[in-house]
Amino acid sequence: MMDDPMPTLAPLRRIATPKGDVFHVLKVSDESFVGFGEAYVSDVAYGAIKGWKRHRRMTLNLACPVGAVRFVVRARDGRSQILLDTILAPDPPSHYRRLTVPPMLWFGFAGIGRGCNLVVNVASHPHDPQEADSLDLAAFDWPCERSLVAT
Amino acid sequence: MMDDPMPTLAPLRRIATPKGDVFHVLKVSDESFVGFGEAYVSDVAYGAIKGWKRHRRMTLNLACPVGAVRFVVRARDGRSQILLDTILAPDPPSHYRRLTVPPMLWFGFAGIGRGCNLVVNVASHPHDPQEADSLDLAAFDWPCERSLVAT
Repeated sequence: MMDDPMPTLAPLRRIATPKGDVFHVLKVSDESFVGFGEAYVSDVAYGAIKGWKRHRRMTLNLACPVGAVRFVVRARDGRSQILLDTILAPDPPSHYRRLTVPPMLWFGFAGIGRGCNLVVNVASHPHDPQEADSLDLAAFDWPCERSLVAT
Repeated sequence: MMDDPMPTLAPLRRIATPKGDVFHVLKVSDESFVGFGEAYVSDVAYGAIKGWKRHRRMTLNLACPVGAVRFVVRARDGRSQILLDTILAPDPPSHYRRLTVPPMLWFGFAGIGRGCNLVVNVASHPHDPQEADSLDLAAFDWPCERSLVAT
């Protein structure tokens, strides 16, 4: 466990303007920037859980400008430890933040807003099925709702 | 005019899944990738027009995964020529595409969907007020709705 890299959260700015807000995601000068491979957006339907996934090389930089998404990140072996259980969302401002997931950690994410729940990922490597692993959601415990309030 | 770099449109994949779609935005291997400086998301309210703006160094790579946004790109001098007048939107699939705006062109964009209208920008340079110019919307003609159907 001691060798596991840790997922990190960093506050992000949401700049309010009368014509529509601007949501920061990632700058080349940010500490969690380790290279650009691909940017994409994932929608996760209300009540759906995408997971478990693990990337062997990709670092993910994630932000949620619409809806609300719960992320659970597990230790490298998947079973022993939940490293992070958190919510990304545009509101309240304290929840508008960037989650960085380093390689080799298992993670899953759930749509918890009733409309669309969008995650922007600015990834260090382009999508490549050779460097990504997937497991059925049943492979590891998806924690009960009580832990939702932990972070 | 002949020296103006041109804005370009490229088709993007929207991958439908039962748990929520995935929207491609930009890969390091894409022809329009010229470097990574910053990724951010702009919301533009229904009926609002953000513009005119011009970047001196930044190339913008733009996609709209939610709502619908009209972009108007003008020639370098602003007044003489509209280089592109187009709509980015997740639907229909033919409108899910990436708009690349090279430096020195004036552009504006309008929210035309009744909910939120999000634009993801994967920009070649980080935001820097020193390299960006803004003009009042009245500085150049915002074309009438008829030209909407042109592209």
